[in-house]
Amino acid sequence: MNNFIFYSPTEFVFGKATEMQVGALSKKHGAQKVMIVYGGGSVVRSGLLDRVKHALQEAGVLFCEMGGVQPNPIDTKVYEGIEMCRREQADLLLAVGGGSVVDTAKAIAAGVPYKGDFWDFFIGKGQIEAAVKVAVVLTIPAAGSEGSGNSVITRVDGLQKLGISAPELLRPVFSIMNPELTYTLPAFQTACGVADMMAHLMERYFTNTTDVEISDRLCEGVLLAIINEAPKVIESPEDYGARANLMWSGMVAHNGTCGVGREEDWATHFMEHEVSAIYGVTHGAGLAVIFPAWMTWMVEHNVRRIAQYAIRVWGVQSSEDEKSVALEGICRLKSFFKSIGLPVNFKELGIAKPDIDRLVENLHRNKGERIGNYVKLSSQDTTEIYRLACAEE
Amino acid sequence: MNNFIFYSPTEFVFGKATEMQVGALSKKHGAQKVMIVYGGGSVVRSGLLDRVKHALQEAGVLFCEMGGVQPNPIDTKVYEGIEMCRREQADLLLAVGGGSVVDTAKAIAAGVPYKGDFWDFFIGKGQIEAAVKVAVVLTIPAAGSEGSGNSVITRVDGLQKLGISAPELLRPVFSIMNPELTYTLPAFQTACGVADMMAHLMERYFTNTTDVEISDRLCEGVLLAIINEAPKVIESPEDYGARANLMWSGMVAHNGTCGVGREEDWATHFMEHEVSAIYGVTHGAGLAVIFPAWMTWMVEHNVRRIAQYAIRVWGVQSSEDEKSVALEGICRLKSFFKSIGLPVNFKELGIAKPDIDRLVENLHRNKGERIGNYVKLSSQDTTEIYRLACAEE
Repeated sequence: MNNFIFYSPTEFVFGKATEMQVGALSKKHGAQKVMIVYGGGSVVRSGLLDRVKHALQEAGVLFCEMGGVQPNPIDTKVYEGIEMCRREQADLLLAVGGGSVVDTAKAIAAGVPYKGDFWDFFIGKGQIEAAVKVAVVLTIPAAGSEGSGNSVITRVDGLQKLGISAPELLRPVFSIMNPELTYTLPAFQTACGVADMMAHLMERYFTNTTDVEISDRLCEGVLLAIINEAPKVIESPEDYGARANLMWSGMVAHNGTCGVGREEDWATHFMEHEVSAIYGVTHGAGLAVIFPAWMTWMVEHNVRRIAQYAIRVWGVQSSEDEKSVALEGICRLKSFFKSIGLPVNFKELGIAKPDIDRLVENLHRNKGERIGNYVKLSSQDTTEIYRLACAEE
Repeated sequence: MNNFIFYSPTEFVFGKATEMQVGALSKKHGAQKVMIVYGGGSVVRSGLLDRVKHALQEAGVLFCEMGGVQPNPIDTKVYEGIEMCRREQADLLLAVGGGSVVDTAKAIAAGVPYKGDFWDFFIGKGQIEAAVKVAVVLTIPAAGSEGSGNSVITRVDGLQKLGISAPELLRPVFSIMNPELTYTLPAFQTACGVADMMAHLMERYFTNTTDVEISDRLCEGVLLAIINEAPKVIESPEDYGARANLMWSGMVAHNGTCGVGREEDWATHFMEHEVSAIYGVTHGAGLAVIFPAWMTWMVEHNVRRIAQYAIRVWGVQSSEDEKSVALEGICRLKSFFKSIGLPVNFKELGIAKPDIDRLVENLHRNKGERIGNYVKLSSQDTTEIYRLACAEE
């Protein structure tokens, strides 16, 4: 097991009607003026934004607001937010929404005290040394950004989708998680969230540091819970217990709980980022296409843990023929994705003929000559994986 | 799923040689003068105490020290510590040791700013509203106190062993966890630690809030990891990977990660506290005796989750006859305890004829007429369970 630091000081307030505590929590965490960041209509239409404002008012906390954050959030919105936050002198960025909104708030938080261009952090030109506090009222369980210190932003000019990580500065000080707020999430968006949280666990699971049994078992446990609960939510969108299980699983999947003490992979995430940067697809849907393809390629190149995953997560019968075991596990994963309405190849994702050369070129230009850890992938390897993702059954 | 707050802001620094960071971490968390709390000879003999002092000196952090904390820590040591901490004006209590040392440091931390008797907190006469900061260099993985906001202290006068919980004030600000420091832990102490951490998971597992699949799966996962790693450590005390898995499992088992959103049980812990208060046995050894007896009683009174536990944790074949399934699971748990050198009845614990009447009387006087949640136990029930714990195979 590798040395590690695990430091997750976010206060998670979970359950029914918890958004009403946003004023008291903002105050408790030292806020005097909150800048609310949100996306589009649903937060307004549902009345959530009004409830949040009301709770802030009741607690005597001032606020300003910036809406209009879009899925696959972009840098121009971050620049706008940095300017507003400085002008309004807000000391807490309150993201009300899903991962895109939270990631935008985090990028603003890092950018406000920085003299240069916030994009420097994303291309390794600058180090985050200070940040405005971030807090969350979560409406979409998927990205896990409510518990992580990460942010992913797309630069419009050049279509670079890149990430930053600054756990000590960008983890939210508090995250309010009310599963009822996810009742109205459409089935497809719910399923995309499921794929995203599963991917966060699988990126941590496929590692060559194989002596960390505790992290294996935690990953497997959360995967088993998600696999059990997701179909219930697709079937009955207002099943509180199932929504609650999924919402908490999404946090646990990405705040580090399931990944200590070893190297992680993340090649699939990087490969997907290029797909959504060019084609604008939902991140989770893209992952549902790329992850099985990545695993299929791994059967021929590093099968061991794909087989362990097949046995422990999908209940495949153990056998000496590890490749068959692994392939059966991948088959069950794809069946599961299909059963909750997700695509498992490019065509189903709505991309009849992906421009693989361009994807591979962007990928390695943005993320380096070799990507991932479980096997370090060259451009020839990633080309093969993108091709596997085209395969129809 | 019940509403909950999960707030675990401890910075865990895990791995080889991490104790050398204690000075820098104390400074980072605002300490100017540290009061080191420790137990007996081993911390001195191993040179750990010297290394800690050296690291504090190097970082320019002042310190004072109080040794002599014993297993099943007592109130008199807490009074002594409170006095010293006030006199020395220490602003960080650094526990160097296992659960007893950490619990003593926490009780001191709560007592220092309080005008009354610190024991008020343990008998519900006073509320903890402030505390000195606590930090840990852990040497025994077992109690999970390095990640929790709890403390258990025994009052010498009257032999009351009681606990407090103040997560926001008593969780350590940082915990240093170097698995190498546990190499010299004798096999029996190691096994007692294993029973303690398993008990922390099982107290959370046996609940009537049955819709929290994510907490079930997390508990099961950590149990599976512990069951896999413990025999390796008993066999090879210097197996770094196995020691590391156990050490981290002990933290995860008790910082709340595995128990959100539902009522927990804790009857077994309460029943064991009376045993170690009177007979001075090691907490984990007492738990290894009481827990299987408690489960055996439950087979006749609320079998459902004992059966689920048997299937998911011990791999018992599922069947319509839940009682048989549950009993087989209990049998495997006892075999496991025996295989790592633990007692599974009072006689093996060294108590040939326990004074059950006295245990039951103390238990219900200290903890109330009914204890536990999975089934709320009367004095007749707990008498039966203590009797079951006498049964030899």
